[in-house]
Amino acid sequence: MPKSLFEAEEKNAEGFAKECAVVTHYRLQNDPDNPGKLRVDPEAKLEEELVVRPTSEAIIWNTYKGWIQSYRDLPLLINQWANVVRWEMRTRLFLRTAEFLWQEGHTAHATKTEALAEAETMNNVYATFAENFMAIPVIQGLKSESERFAGADETYCIEALMQDGKALQAGTSHFLGQNFAKAFDVKFTNKEGKQDYVWATSWGVSTRLMGALIMTHSDDQGLVLPPNLAPNQVVVVPIYKTEEQLEEITKIVNNILKDLRSKGITVKYDNRTTHRPGAKFAQHELQGVPLRIAIGLRDLENGTVELARRDTLTKETVAINSLTEKVEGLMTEIQESLYNKALKFRDSHITEVDNFEDFKAILKNKGGFISAHWDGTVETEEKIKEITKATIRCLPLEGELEDGFCVYSKKPSNRRVLFAKAY
Amino acid sequence: MPKSLFEAEEKNAEGFAKECAVVTHYRLQNDPDNPGKLRVDPEAKLEEELVVRPTSEAIIWNTYKGWIQSYRDLPLLINQWANVVRWEMRTRLFLRTAEFLWQEGHTAHATKTEALAEAETMNNVYATFAENFMAIPVIQGLKSESERFAGADETYCIEALMQDGKALQAGTSHFLGQNFAKAFDVKFTNKEGKQDYVWATSWGVSTRLMGALIMTHSDDQGLVLPPNLAPNQVVVVPIYKTEEQLEEITKIVNNILKDLRSKGITVKYDNRTTHRPGAKFAQHELQGVPLRIAIGLRDLENGTVELARRDTLTKETVAINSLTEKVEGLMTEIQESLYNKALKFRDSHITEVDNFEDFKAILKNKGGFISAHWDGTVETEEKIKEITKATIRCLPLEGELEDGFCVYSKKPSNRRVLFAKAY
Repeated sequence: MPKSLFEAEEKNAEGFAKECAVVTHYRLQNDPDNPGKLRVDPEAKLEEELVVRPTSEAIIWNTYKGWIQSYRDLPLLINQWANVVRWEMRTRLFLRTAEFLWQEGHTAHATKTEALAEAETMNNVYATFAENFMAIPVIQGLKSESERFAGADETYCIEALMQDGKALQAGTSHFLGQNFAKAFDVKFTNKEGKQDYVWATSWGVSTRLMGALIMTHSDDQGLVLPPNLAPNQVVVVPIYKTEEQLEEITKIVNNILKDLRSKGITVKYDNRTTHRPGAKFAQHELQGVPLRIAIGLRDLENGTVELARRDTLTKETVAINSLTEKVEGLMTEIQESLYNKALKFRDSHITEVDNFEDFKAILKNKGGFISAHWDGTVETEEKIKEITKATIRCLPLEGELEDGFCVYSKKPSNRRVLFAKAY
Repeated sequence: MPKSLFEAEEKNAEGFAKECAVVTHYRLQNDPDNPGKLRVDPEAKLEEELVVRPTSEAIIWNTYKGWIQSYRDLPLLINQWANVVRWEMRTRLFLRTAEFLWQEGHTAHATKTEALAEAETMNNVYATFAENFMAIPVIQGLKSESERFAGADETYCIEALMQDGKALQAGTSHFLGQNFAKAFDVKFTNKEGKQDYVWATSWGVSTRLMGALIMTHSDDQGLVLPPNLAPNQVVVVPIYKTEEQLEEITKIVNNILKDLRSKGITVKYDNRTTHRPGAKFAQHELQGVPLRIAIGLRDLENGTVELARRDTLTKETVAINSLTEKVEGLMTEIQESLYNKALKFRDSHITEVDNFEDFKAILKNKGGFISAHWDGTVETEEKIKEITKATIRCLPLEGELEDGFCVYSKKPSNRRVLFAKAY
């Protein structure tokens, strides 16, 4: 986006200016000093630099300006999948990459109430997806002022806990107030014929969710995928020596595939002749396929197969005639089991703390979320971060009001918030 | 991608160097001379410039180098959706934008035969999608050397014809030979234990297909969407004066919606109270909804609705009890009718030409594809382009060999190729 658009919403620009990729030229040319190499063509300098978008509000609201005149044009929702760039000092695979693919939704509303409701709805959508599909329990909450999206009046978030005790912000949904409407002069005529600025939200999740998935469920054998998300829920591996044996096994397997697929289960038959069963087992474990079916000659005789669960690494022998039913049941069981295991871990890593010594000790020895009173000031938040590296992950939506004293400043507080070290 | 990766495959780099966005800095700062404005931070200059990818072969093959050692690792296919940037001199909405979203697939193979087959397969996939879903007839062919993808040994393409008589390249699939494997040193051990370079393909379609869709089927009322692609195949608009009337109509409509949806038809009930029926009709026509159902008070009495086809703009009255069957039939009929109309137009705009005067006259007065003999040289191709602005769109795969003389140079030729002015 042109620099002039980028800088229009001041807080947003300020928040991202320190970490954005800037396009200054539009051409390379052969380097006369290094044959076969290219250099930037100094003649191809842009009059106005472009910023590779770190997020698209500026472009969206510059566009909405031309689209919105009346309440009849509202509400308006645009969702786009796009690559964005944020020039991070320290990158981390999946979690914090300089470039990432995400979906970003941008809505425009006639009223504050409707915009707030939309921001909440989308945060719910993200929570539901994380929990029901990814089997990742999340805490819904609001960000503190200093952790808010630059340009937002309120940031809703879903926070997950990784196996190493660090928190991960897995998705955010922002109530943008009228900030972008004012920066880009987007007004509408309401039902009463009066002009007003439009109310806005934006929300996104990114490939960071892949990181969340990996770090929530994986073990030393590799990835563990929840059935509701696995591209292949089941893999079938034949155990054979001769081609004739493979043919015989394949006949039985074809029926198994047909039955499983008729129940909507995705299943892959790994009949590659280039790899031994052991190598296949290791690969599918590494890739997290929820369930493996192995079938060999003795199974043919006995009318059985061997089932291996990825999540528990347990095996059992099952009769082929009850296999489909068994697999169907396991899909639900594995999904629930992964979620419950992560939930148990998460819940056992939320520690209520009432003094700063305990705060530091828990953070050091146990990790996870710390539920503590906070005096609501940016100064305290910064001080705690400076000393412990823990930040306020969110003010949980479900948290109840409770009188107490700030864990750091000992000033009065009326609710607990969640602190954690975070990715 | 880092400039050094970008320049590794020489032809590819040469092809794109003249039109690429170059990132030279990673930070903006407040402009001391212009309060509230930002400027590039001169301290944040990159040691090595980054090129915003115009296409991703360089990144992919630099990655494949670490993934491929043996024939067991092949074939390998990665498809990604990504934004890419090509610094076009003249941009054109949907057809030629500086940035566009596309899917790009990249495959690696042990043999030339397999790679060639993959390139053909993917070109077929694109042709099938264009014809069966988008209702756009396409010609499959090979590009001439000068129109080939930079770095490819062969480029397959699908070429469509727009209503204004200009051709549009709607998708491409490249056989890359061993060019990228050699540039990035990607070797594998084959079954015989010998080292060889890997064979490659890449293929992509982009948001340009949106342009193809718009320019193939639209009319003066706006977009015309084929039912197989329309997000809403049917829209229902109630015609009423009072709220009670709307309630009565809605009762009937709810049954209609249920019946249509039970047949897999996507249907939207436009019961907005903010817009009059006329405004709704105009909007749905503009947006190309294939079929509109209007239902008013007289329809309630008669047990009928009014059906309006977007493609023919014709209306008819239909009894509600035969509506679902009627709509189902129309979905197929409209889909076929759009395709056949476009096919008829396309076929009537392929003109066989045997001398250059006719070539120029047809191009000027009729447009479309010109099927003509060509001597196979880059010189002739360039000369024709210089004089007429027409380029060789493709050497059609279905074209038969036929002896003749080049339409420009009069040298012998053994096949006709397709020329056209193109987007």
